[in-house]
Amino acid sequence: MSSFPSSSSPRTLKIGIIGFGPFAQFLAKTIIKQGHTIRATSRSDHSELSVQLGISFFRNMDAFLESDNDVILLSTSILSLSEVVKSMPFNRLKGQTLFADVLSVKEYPREVLLQTVPQDCDVLCTHPMFGPESGKEGWKDLTFVYDRVRISNEAICRSFLQIFQTEGCKMLEISCEEHDKLAAQSQFLTHTIGWMLSEMEIGPTSIDTKGFQKLVQVKQSTTKDSFDLFCGLFIHNRFARQEVQNLELALEKVKQKLKERMNEDQDRSVSNQ
Amino acid sequence: MSSFPSSSSPRTLKIGIIGFGPFAQFLAKTIIKQGHTIRATSRSDHSELSVQLGISFFRNMDAFLESDNDVILLSTSILSLSEVVKSMPFNRLKGQTLFADVLSVKEYPREVLLQTVPQDCDVLCTHPMFGPESGKEGWKDLTFVYDRVRISNEAICRSFLQIFQTEGCKMLEISCEEHDKLAAQSQFLTHTIGWMLSEMEIGPTSIDTKGFQKLVQVKQSTTKDSFDLFCGLFIHNRFARQEVQNLELALEKVKQKLKERMNEDQDRSVSNQ
Ligand SMILES: NC(=O)c1ccc[n+]([C@@H]2O[C@H](COP(=O)([O-])OP(=O)(O)OC[C@H]3O[C@@H](n4cnc5c(N)ncnc54)[C@H](OP(=O)(O)O)[C@@H]3O)[C@@H](O)[C@H]2O)c1
Ligand SMILES: NC(=O)c1ccc[n+]([C@@H]2O[C@H](COP(=O)([O-])OP(=O)(O)OC[C@H]3O[C@@H](n4cnc5c(N)ncnc54)[C@H](OP(=O)(O)O)[C@@H]3O)[C@@H](O)[C@H]2O)c1
Repeated sequence: MSSFPSSSSPRTLKIGIIGFGPFAQFLAKTIIKQGHTIRATSRSDHSELSVQLGISFFRNMDAFLESDNDVILLSTSILSLSEVVKSMPFNRLKGQTLFADVLSVKEYPREVLLQTVPQDCDVLCTHPMFGPESGKEGWKDLTFVYDRVRISNEAICRSFLQIFQTEGCKMLEISCEEHDKLAAQSQFLTHTIGWMLSEMEIGPTSIDTKGFQKLVQVKQSTTKDSFDLFCGLFIHNRFARQEVQNLELALEKVKQKLKERMNEDQDRSVSNQ
Repeated sequence: MSSFPSSSSPRTLKIGIIGFGPFAQFLAKTIIKQGHTIRATSRSDHSELSVQLGISFFRNMDAFLESDNDVILLSTSILSLSEVVKSMPFNRLKGQTLFADVLSVKEYPREVLLQTVPQDCDVLCTHPMFGPESGKEGWKDLTFVYDRVRISNEAICRSFLQIFQTEGCKMLEISCEEHDKLAAQSQFLTHTIGWMLSEMEIGPTSIDTKGFQKLVQVKQSTTKDSFDLFCGLFIHNRFARQEVQNLELALEKVKQKLKERMNEDQDRSVSNQ
């Protein structure tokens, strides 16, 4: 973790968002509030909502890229990133641009962007460790992970990061690899348990303990995100598979211990008779 | 759920506790504060702590039962209940007594008590749905489950229940069977996940999401209770086994869905090449 540079004064940015789904919309509200200009494009038509938010929405990718953005922010689903990026007409770009992404996995977009984004453009990989639910009361003290993968224009990069620092985020600079290791152990595990609890259709009972209430909350917040997001966490984080195995193994071990204790208990009650 | 009778004025009780472990000690502090008298006996010697709390501690079960209690409160581990109750010299009792238990399963102590407690004594099965952790800030709004299994002395029973009502507990009268069904789905499931997370040795990371923090809390509060308690929840709640199967099945289903989505994804990227 490096200390975050906060000395220089940030500038107002023109930010073009690709993938204007729930998370991008959530981010956009705060970014606009800070005075930056937003343009957006997406597979689906979000022009009605965009008008309400005061955002120019482009149905055409060429026109979007020509609209001259300081930053192109990728917020597509993890599963569609490669398809979206590979179909982008990069020759339409007006000049040097910072490509930033907010995907919940990090090694994968790093690789995709390094392979596709023009050499004179910068690459910043980020993961805000919060969403519309956990960040609805503001972003203060919530963690913002970033990796300055390929940065030549320091001023633009700094101004972009400043958006999150201004809101009080805990700024954490770690490598994409380190992020994916930690995220598999924590966020991915949480989503796996959340989707398991959803399969089990758990819900409040009249005798909930405080612990069970926490599980109900985990289920609810997990399933507010799309199943695609969860699949993306699994497919494109190479550390996730091991986590599923660890979870299976843990269940096996717990079952084993219960069985052993049950046998002991039966032996004891037989010898007591 | 029946409405709780609160009209009559409660009396001061002499309560004898059998099994003076962590949960009984936690209950005792509040019961003493309300002005009731407590005596205790247990497998291990808790006389030092008892002196500090102002409680008479009996190392001898005969003397304990002769000490003339209005209520005998059973707070042994689930696994030792039967052994403890079957070795009690009930002929030492001075008079009609209310036998109450606080075990986290309910059909099982109901059966054990109905089989062993003298006919002229009453039986009340209860489960405070909280413990030293979740109840450390007081018992207000925490659920107290009870089943009036065999009650002839209404006044004593009411005075005992009043202890929990006075602290602001949500009083919930349900059958032991209904309790066990609901508790398997909620508390037992929570403990199973808590012990699984303990097997996995999860702990805070630098990028915890709020959801993951909740899982860490579930792990911590589960493992503050003994593994014996968890085994008791499994062995002596006939609905628990199904819950373990449901959990396994849910993990299987989630894995299956991930696999299907991954195959789709691979097919799509092959056909896009
Ligand atoms: N939700 C969160 O809490 C959170 C937090 C941090 C980071 N993230 C990351 O932010 C990104 C967006 O997440 P999200 O919550 O909005 O939901 P998501 O389901 O992960 O992604 C939805 C977005 O992906 C686009 N998309 C999906 N399939 C597509 C396809 N085949 N072709 C083109 N575009 C496609 C959608 O476009 P249309 O809307 O135009 O259909 C929409 O903009 C994800 O990468 C996620 O990992 C999310
Ligand atoms: N902890 C909670 O949050 C909670 C909440 C609600 C209900 N309960 C219930 O309250 C009861 C007590 O729970 P706990 O948390 O104190 O821990 P526990 O491990 O379930 O039980 C400990 C108690 O059981 C006694 N015991 C254990 N093995 C015994 C044996 N072989 N022979 C005789 N006595 C034995 C211990 O005696 P010594 O101390 O003398 O060794 C101690 O008093 C349990 O039935 C539990 O289900 C607990």
